[in-house]
Amino acid sequence: MIDDAIRDLRSGKPVLIFDSAKREGETDIVIASQHITSEKIRFMRKNGGGLICTTLRESEARVLGLPFIEDFYRDNLKIEKRAMDTSDMKYDKNSSFSVTINHRKTFTGISDNDRSLTASAFAELLGEISSGKTDGAVGRFVENFRIPGHISLIIAREGYFRRRRGHTELGTYLSEAAGLIPSVTLVEMLDDNGLSLNREKAMRFASENSLTFIDGESIIQRWNNDQSDGHRSVRHTSSGTSALLEGIQEVGR
Amino acid sequence: MIDDAIRDLRSGKPVLIFDSAKREGETDIVIASQHITSEKIRFMRKNGGGLICTTLRESEARVLGLPFIEDFYRDNLKIEKRAMDTSDMKYDKNSSFSVTINHRKTFTGISDNDRSLTASAFAELLGEISSGKTDGAVGRFVENFRIPGHISLIIAREGYFRRRRGHTELGTYLSEAAGLIPSVTLVEMLDDNGLSLNREKAMRFASENSLTFIDGESIIQRWNNDQSDGHRSVRHTSSGTSALLEGIQEVGR
Repeated sequence: MIDDAIRDLRSGKPVLIFDSAKREGETDIVIASQHITSEKIRFMRKNGGGLICTTLRESEARVLGLPFIEDFYRDNLKIEKRAMDTSDMKYDKNSSFSVTINHRKTFTGISDNDRSLTASAFAELLGEISSGKTDGAVGRFVENFRIPGHISLIIAREGYFRRRRGHTELGTYLSEAAGLIPSVTLVEMLDDNGLSLNREKAMRFASENSLTFIDGESIIQRWNNDQSDGHRSVRHTSSGTSALLEGIQEVGR
Repeated sequence: MIDDAIRDLRSGKPVLIFDSAKREGETDIVIASQHITSEKIRFMRKNGGGLICTTLRESEARVLGLPFIEDFYRDNLKIEKRAMDTSDMKYDKNSSFSVTINHRKTFTGISDNDRSLTASAFAELLGEISSGKTDGAVGRFVENFRIPGHISLIIAREGYFRRRRGHTELGTYLSEAAGLIPSVTLVEMLDDNGLSLNREKAMRFASENSLTFIDGESIIQRWNNDQSDGHRSVRHTSSGTSALLEGIQEVGR
């Protein structure tokens, strides 16, 4: 299943990711940002119905100076800090929201063409940053994008599932595991009964549309294996420093 | 047409507002926030497809300490100020975005039930503030709402069409003219060709669904008349101070 999801993500196909019954209990339509087109944004808004967001990793967010908006508001918004108190959130401790953006060549920013341009061009910039072209990245960002806009950026926590197990982390890790630019564009699947689409109905939608449906658990399992493999290969190449490197691995990505 | 729009808004029916061919050239589905239900949010996401936003006036935003997010980012975000440079926006000088919110009793915040609760409860708070119950309003806000969330708040500029002629101002002014709580919840209508739904198609949708379609121009015309009536009644009651009052009227609402 994980291999199907990775194959589909690579080919630009939507993948349906269910986080967990213990969390939001929600399925998101997830597409590699580098493969976003106008048609795919349309597919997402028609078959998802939630908020269309584009993910990035904390490492790229740091290069661009883009904050978790919750922290930023807490530090700067002149309103009682209780407004940003997320301790009563039902499914997690924190949101992953950062700022919203529009590509400067968009018109209103909201049409399928416009959101497609914003998400795919932003993925391109992330690709440059993640491959080491960090010099001038902020300049390229502000030349090409405007804050605020109609694509919500959401940041995957560094260290992934040690920190958070939301769709932001699940999708972004999957794109990384697929060897793609580490960013997905996603939307929540809503039902017509006022609630989120439940797991069973999302699975049925996947089956009817020949899409891969995957549980967050399977993605986290893959990540766990990768971590272990990482440890093994470290041990293999330089057993003397393995304890130190394991320690680093606990806090870094 | 304006009377039909006001009547529909009062009864909780959606009204379709086209801003102007000289601006976004976009039609929004607009509903009085105090009449929002889960079914109406569903109607908006299915037939609109854009971003579901709830408006408030600058006067209530000031009481709550909610900023135009563009200004707030410009002052506080540690990124090149060019990121917030909106001078290349194609249809206006500024966006009307403020923060995003969720009601604290929502679950994920994005389902139709959740967005309905957020928008309608926020309207209730605005109703209290606009009727003069400003003491403790911030406390009631932070007790009941969390920042960030899944409803984008957008602020109608004070002085309305002297300042900006977007759907934010058009819809909010209409709710005010209707004697309702001054807030609408709205969404952009998108077409399946990658663009916004054009005026002709939006009019056809209105006709097929027995909804009122209205041009921004008609709303601004009504506002102009209201302004003149204001001047006339001032002249009538105290002609001696009319010049001064006209001056005030130029900068205030």
